[in-house]
Amino acid sequence: MTGTAPAPFTADDHLARMERAARQAAEAGLAGLLVAPGPDLAWLTGYTPTAVTERLTLLVLAAGRDPVLVVPTLEAPDAERAPGAPVLTLRDWTDGKDPYAATAALLDAGGRYGVSDNTWAMHLLGLQKALPGTSYASLTEALPMLRAVKDAAELELLAAAGAAADAAFEEIRGVAFAGRRESDVAADLAALLRRFGHSQVDFTIVASGPNGANPHHEAGDRVIERGDMVVLDFGGLKDGYGSDTSRTVHVGEPTDEERRVHDLVREAQEAGFRAVRPGVACQEVDRAARAVIADAGYGERFIHRTGHGIGVTTHEPPYMIEGEEQPLVPGMCFSVEPGVYLPGRFGVRIEDIVTVTADGGRRLNNTARELVIVD
Amino acid sequence: MTGTAPAPFTADDHLARMERAARQAAEAGLAGLLVAPGPDLAWLTGYTPTAVTERLTLLVLAAGRDPVLVVPTLEAPDAERAPGAPVLTLRDWTDGKDPYAATAALLDAGGRYGVSDNTWAMHLLGLQKALPGTSYASLTEALPMLRAVKDAAELELLAAAGAAADAAFEEIRGVAFAGRRESDVAADLAALLRRFGHSQVDFTIVASGPNGANPHHEAGDRVIERGDMVVLDFGGLKDGYGSDTSRTVHVGEPTDEERRVHDLVREAQEAGFRAVRPGVACQEVDRAARAVIADAGYGERFIHRTGHGIGVTTHEPPYMIEGEEQPLVPGMCFSVEPGVYLPGRFGVRIEDIVTVTADGGRRLNNTARELVIVD
Repeated sequence: MTGTAPAPFTADDHLARMERAARQAAEAGLAGLLVAPGPDLAWLTGYTPTAVTERLTLLVLAAGRDPVLVVPTLEAPDAERAPGAPVLTLRDWTDGKDPYAATAALLDAGGRYGVSDNTWAMHLLGLQKALPGTSYASLTEALPMLRAVKDAAELELLAAAGAAADAAFEEIRGVAFAGRRESDVAADLAALLRRFGHSQVDFTIVASGPNGANPHHEAGDRVIERGDMVVLDFGGLKDGYGSDTSRTVHVGEPTDEERRVHDLVREAQEAGFRAVRPGVACQEVDRAARAVIADAGYGERFIHRTGHGIGVTTHEPPYMIEGEEQPLVPGMCFSVEPGVYLPGRFGVRIEDIVTVTADGGRRLNNTARELVIVD
Repeated sequence: MTGTAPAPFTADDHLARMERAARQAAEAGLAGLLVAPGPDLAWLTGYTPTAVTERLTLLVLAAGRDPVLVVPTLEAPDAERAPGAPVLTLRDWTDGKDPYAATAALLDAGGRYGVSDNTWAMHLLGLQKALPGTSYASLTEALPMLRAVKDAAELELLAAAGAAADAAFEEIRGVAFAGRRESDVAADLAALLRRFGHSQVDFTIVASGPNGANPHHEAGDRVIERGDMVVLDFGGLKDGYGSDTSRTVHVGEPTDEERRVHDLVREAQEAGFRAVRPGVACQEVDRAARAVIADAGYGERFIHRTGHGIGVTTHEPPYMIEGEEQPLVPGMCFSVEPGVYLPGRFGVRIEDIVTVTADGGRRLNNTARELVIVD
């Protein structure tokens, strides 16, 4: 799962984020924002409920009004312990009562609201029914860059998470690959991420030989053999902020073709990285990486976008994809991860988290991008 | 998190479920059902994506039509391996394309659809925009009992999960409580659930002394002391089906009051269980348990509903709550879990999973409900 973990921010930090979000919402013509449990709520308030259930929890933000958290009575004690709780007004509701009516009383009957992407449809339908005059936009559509630009404290946490993932890669290089199952190496990776400070492991992809040609293959029972390319793609949360890095290693000596494809992906990743600078559209990062692969005749084998944002989750806007014209802004953090996938044979992907600086980009992953040979 | 794990059902089993769901939808006046990743999709198709992201995956069911799964191209290889895949038509869409337009082509432009509760709001908004003439109802509101009545194979899996949780309780009785942190005992419980066959642990509540008065307290750093009441509430998934049981134990000898409150909750749990029989409304189970506690003067201290359904999740309809007039049907499975919570002091909860039989109820948890003394 992609989730969240506590980060070291104060009630004042959270209040500043909520006020900024409410202001941006007003500037976008919205009456306010409605935020259900998930990364947006964690970022805004520090609150992550133990479980997300059918019981409505919803943060109501509007410029010039105090933020209100609608919460089930049962979960109020947990919410009261959240870092942002001191600056929130809690409105609890008990089982059997109508939480949509209670929320409706906090909304403008004819207003348009941004609603967090992962809010359950049943809650949106409940609000649409309780207040038929309101309208809604997905939060990411309305304010795509709400969490995209990281401040100095967030950058430090992302850099620390990246360094921890790099430390895990340095260790995994030394373990035995040949003769072990993908799932065994994946378990090693998960243990290493935790050893280097991750509280949550989101994914540990170990895709060997032909499995590497499926970008979303996780890790299975396949026994890794000498001669395999192995895509490693792993990350999670450390102190509430994400890591996500990929390296492709080879068990024993690669063939010329394997080396050529790996070099190509490395060159594409470098081109994507070099395209990063303020003011450039997100899609230019994708185009730069894709051009290298397409020029070499492998365009059809690069079957996903070049990157995604990272922050309190390991996967969020902005997206480095054709059609995304959002300009890069210093403080944005995202992956640059081109790949080439040869069905039935092997795949190669190389991924770093990159942050936009005043005059270019800075990588938050710094392990070798050359083809690493493992045993 | 509450999630799912694979269960041993065939493509034909899944087809039967999908056909039944589509038929029930038609009977309820719906044009069809739209089901995003989550327990409904797992139950209908056996498919659980590795991660739920902003990329749309959606099952489209309509009576008399073949079921179609809209899926991101990147995730199609995973979906093709799902148990229900042989009876599904996959429609994949690639990054950069509009998945809502692709889905809209499969829908009746003026139809009303049931949409799975946990579908992301952004997806519902995307569909509402792509096809403004459609309308939507939450799946639980439209077909609340879709997954509620379990068949023989499902009952067997739930009974096995319950027996595994019971085995975990028998072992945890013997561990040291006094002098250890709640989180240590919780870790023991999680390890025991896994040892007895659970693939996923959803919760391991260890709420000692005053923490027991918060029904949703999980487990923290508090060191358990002699003289503490300790609420244990734990469960997860075994072979794709859920367990969930609570027992309240005491470290050393209890006071008369502690024993009295525990006896009261046990009596209430027994009364709730005895109210279970076909044709009785769900709310009657709640009323029966609540009456015992209210009559003893603790009505204000029983601050949650009496129970919730269980199946491929550990928390689902039907709910045993005032206002739920749905009649019980043989094969329904749910918790009966009254509690008494004394703020600042202690709490007591006793919970069994109960299934409705032809002439009453059968407990799927069978450990001692008397107050167990631990060390």
